Amino acid sequence: MNDQPRKPRSAAHEIERYGALFAQRTRVMKSSAMRDLMALTARDDVISFSGGLPDTSTFAPGFFTELMGRVASESMARALQYGPTEGMTDVREVIAEVMEAEGMTVDPDAILPTSGGQQALDLVCKILIDPGDVIVAEAPTYPGAVPTFCSYEADVVQVPMDRDGMRIDDLREALAQLDREGRRPKFIYTIPNFHNPAGVTLSLERRRELLAIAGERELLVLEDNPYGLLRYEGEQIPTLYSLDPDFVLYAGTFSKILSPGVRIGWLVAPPPVLRQLVLGKGSADLCSSSVSQYFIAEYFRSGPWMNYVRSLSELYRRRRDVMLDAMAEHFPREASWTHPEGGLFLWATLPDYIDTTDLLARAIEERVAFVPGRAAFVDGRGGSSMRLNFSGVGEDEIREGIRRLGEVIREQVALYGTLTGQSLGERDTPAAGPAGPAADPTPHHDNVHHLKHKRAG
Amino acid sequence: MNDQPRKPRSAAHEIERYGALFAQRTRVMKSSAMRDLMALTARDDVISFSGGLPDTSTFAPGFFTELMGRVASESMARALQYGPTEGMTDVREVIAEVMEAEGMTVDPDAILPTSGGQQALDLVCKILIDPGDVIVAEAPTYPGAVPTFCSYEADVVQVPMDRDGMRIDDLREALAQLDREGRRPKFIYTIPNFHNPAGVTLSLERRRELLAIAGERELLVLEDNPYGLLRYEGEQIPTLYSLDPDFVLYAGTFSKILSPGVRIGWLVAPPPVLRQLVLGKGSADLCSSSVSQYFIAEYFRSGPWMNYVRSLSELYRRRRDVMLDAMAEHFPREASWTHPEGGLFLWATLPDYIDTTDLLARAIEERVAFVPGRAAFVDGRGGSSMRLNFSGVGEDEIREGIRRLGEVIREQVALYGTLTGQSLGERDTPAAGPAGPAADPTPHHDNVHHLKHKRAG
Repeated sequence: MNDQPRKPRSAAHEIERYGALFAQRTRVMKSSAMRDLMALTARDDVISFSGGLPDTSTFAPGFFTELMGRVASESMARALQYGPTEGMTDVREVIAEVMEAEGMTVDPDAILPTSGGQQALDLVCKILIDPGDVIVAEAPTYPGAVPTFCSYEADVVQVPMDRDGMRIDDLREALAQLDREGRRPKFIYTIPNFHNPAGVTLSLERRRELLAIAGERELLVLEDNPYGLLRYEGEQIPTLYSLDPDFVLYAGTFSKILSPGVRIGWLVAPPPVLRQLVLGKGSADLCSSSVSQYFIAEYFRSGPWMNYVRSLSELYRRRRDVMLDAMAEHFPREASWTHPEGGLFLWATLPDYIDTTDLLARAIEERVAFVPGRAAFVDGRGGSSMRLNFSGVGEDEIREGIRRLGEVIREQVALYGTLTGQSLGERDTPAAGPAGPAADPTPHHDNVHHLKHKRAG
Repeated sequence: MNDQPRKPRSAAHEIERYGALFAQRTRVMKSSAMRDLMALTARDDVISFSGGLPDTSTFAPGFFTELMGRVASESMARALQYGPTEGMTDVREVIAEVMEAEGMTVDPDAILPTSGGQQALDLVCKILIDPGDVIVAEAPTYPGAVPTFCSYEADVVQVPMDRDGMRIDDLREALAQLDREGRRPKFIYTIPNFHNPAGVTLSLERRRELLAIAGERELLVLEDNPYGLLRYEGEQIPTLYSLDPDFVLYAGTFSKILSPGVRIGWLVAPPPVLRQLVLGKGSADLCSSSVSQYFIAEYFRSGPWMNYVRSLSELYRRRRDVMLDAMAEHFPREASWTHPEGGLFLWATLPDYIDTTDLLARAIEERVAFVPGRAAFVDGRGGSSMRLNFSGVGEDEIREGIRRLGEVIREQVALYGTLTGQSLGERDTPAAGPAGPAADPTPHHDNVHHLKHKRAG
C-alpha cells in the first residue's frame, strides 16, 4: 500500500463530472449558517453567540459515568444493539412524562423518538412535501429548518411576527392569497415558545386563533417546542397541542433539557401520519442510537429531572439579563432587539444600511460571532438582523462579546454617518423602525404584500 | 388535565384526511422486512434468524463503563454537545485506521461519519437520485436498501448473481439495455464481501471487470462493505476502493465490528460529492451522536481493536458451521443454500412451489423466523428464498431453530407431493435448479431478459 492517500485521478474535472449526476434537490440544498459558523468560531479566542448551544458543562461527569455504568450492568447487550425504529418503550414513556410537565397528556404509542429535533423536521417534510408544495413559516424562522425545507424543494411562505409571535391577520392574508393561487399549504410551521431566532412567544389569544384557522381549513400545524420548559419570567402558556391536538404535529427534543449530543428528539402524530413517519425513519437511519436511548431512560429513572431543568433556567436567565444589560450599554440607539421570556436566543435588528452578513466578517476579526439574519429567511430578507445566543456563553464573556460587537456596529453607524454627511448628533431619530429593546422581529413590519412566494426549485 | 390521553376527534376519518396530504414518495415507501420482523420475533420463545444482529453480548460491561468514564472525565461537556456535521476529527482518523486494516489508504478529510450505514445509503440517494433515476443493484440486494431506494422513487435494476457475486456479463447486458433506452444509471450498488443477503463474495477478477466498466462509462459504484473484516476462511480480496478509488463511493460502519447501537457508519467520497453529502446530512440530522463518537474514539484509543474483531470472527465462524451442518441434516434435498466465507448471512432457496412469505407465518407458529426473500427484490422475485442470520443466535439455538425450520419446510414439500400425487420417493430430482449447498443466489438463474425495470413511482 502507498503511504500517501490515493486521490481520485481526475480531481481537476471532478465538479464537471459530478455536476450532471447530482439530483435536482442539490441545486437548492443549502448549508445551515450556524453549521458553517461552528468551524469559524471554534477558535478559542472567538466569543461566539452563533451556536444554539445549551451549556452542557453543567452536567456532572461522575453522574454520567454512574448512569452509563448502570446501563452497562443492566442492559449492555441491548444498549449496543439495533433497536426498534419506533424507539424504546421506556423512552416513549419518558417523553410522555416530559410533555406532561408542559400540560400535555399523550399516549406513548403516539410518539416517535427521532435522531434529534432536526430529524423530526426532516421526516415531516419527507412524508408531506413534494417539490413546489407550500410550507407556511414565521418570518424569521428557525435557521436550521431552512436547509431542510429547501432540500425538499418546498415553497416557503413566511408570515410576519411581532412581539406576540406570528401575526394572525397576516397569516389570514397569506392563506387567502394562496387560495387565490389555488394552493393549499401542507403545514404551518411554528415555534410558539421563545422563538428561535426571534425570541418572542405566541400569545394565548393567537394560539387559539391559529388553531381555529387550522380547524376551519383542516390544515396541519407543526408545533416545534424545544424550549418550552426554559421559561425565565411570565406565565406558562399552554402549547398548541394541549389546547387542541386535532391538527397539530408536535416536535420536541432532549437537546435543551438534557443534551443535544445524545441526538434524541421526538414527534407526536395521529396514527396514519405516525405510520408514514416510522417508514420514513426506517429508510433514513433504521433507528436512533440505542446507547442514547438507554442513557435517557436511566437518567429519567434516576430522580427529579426537573431540578436540572430549573438549574439550567436559572443559569440562562442570568445570562439573558447580562446580555440585555450589555446590549443596552454597548449597542447604538439605532439598534433594536427582542426581550425573550425564555429559551436561548434574542434577535437584534440594526439600521437598514448595515448588512449583518458583511458585518460578521468584521466581527470575527474582533473575535465575536453571531448568526446573520438572512439565515432565517428563504427570500434574502433579514439582512440587517442577527441572532444572538446567550445560553452557551459565560457572563463575563457575554459582557466582553457584546462590548466588542457594539463597537463593530457603532463603527458601521459612524461610517454611514461620515459617508452621508450626517454627524452622530444629527441621528437622534433612529434610522429604521422602532428603536430600543423589544422591537418587532420581522424587518420593516412586513405586510402580506411583502411576502415573497419564493419557488425553491 | 384529563387522565385519558386525548385522541384527535375525527380519528375515523383520519386516513382520508391525510391521504391527500402525503407526498408522492409515500405511495412507494416501504417498510423493511427485517424491521417488521423485529416486533414479531421479540418474543423470547421465537428463535429468530431474521435480524442482521451482531452478538453484542460479547462486549464486557466493565470495559464499556471504563470507556464512558474516560469520556466523562476528559470530554463531558463536548460529548453532550452538538458536534460538527462533518464528524469528529478523531473519529474520521479512526475510520481511516479501520479502512487501512482492509488495505485502503484514505485521507480522513475524505470521510463523512454518518448515523449508521443506513444513513450512508440514504445520503447517497439524497444527492444523486431524482424520481425515476436508475440504480443498478444485485439480485438479491440488501433488504434495508430497498425501502431507501423506494423512498427516493428510484428505478432499481437488479443484476443476477452466482457464487462469485454479481455476474458481469449480465451487468453488461443490463447497461446495454439501459443504453438502448437512453438511460444512464446514477450508480451501481454492490456489497462485494459476504453479501447481505446472498452470502457470496465478488471475485477479484469480477472486481477488476466492474471497475473497468465504471471507468469506461464514468459510472459511480457505491461499495457497501459492512462485513469485510469478518472473514472466516479463504484469502482477503482487495476492496473496490483499494483497487481503484476513482469511481467508487465507499460505505462502511462500526455496526458489525463494534456496535450497531452507537449508530455510526461512514462514507468516503471525492470532495465535490462529499460537500453535497455534508449538506444532505446537515439538513437530515445536523450531526451524529457526540456521545457515540467520543465512545468510539476512546474505544479505539484503548488498545488493539482487531482482537475483538478476531474474537467475533471466531464466534461467528463456529455459528456458521453449526448452521451449515444443521441445514445439511434438517433441510430437504429440494432446498439449496450459499456457503458464506464471512459475514452474517446465508441465503437459502426452496422449491418454486413454496412461498417463503407464506411459510414465515407457519414458521413463527413453530417459533422460528427468517427474512422472506422477496424483501431483497424490488420486483416481487425471491418468493422461494430466505435470508438466515447466524451471528446473533447461539449454537444450540441455531441447531434447534434449523430443526424447526426444516420441519416446516418438509411439511410443505410433503403437502405439495400429496396435492400433485407425487410420493416423496418420486421426487429424487430436485424441483428447482441445482440443489444442495452452494447454489446460485438469484432465483432461476435470471438472465437479462428477466430484468424488470420497475418504475417505483
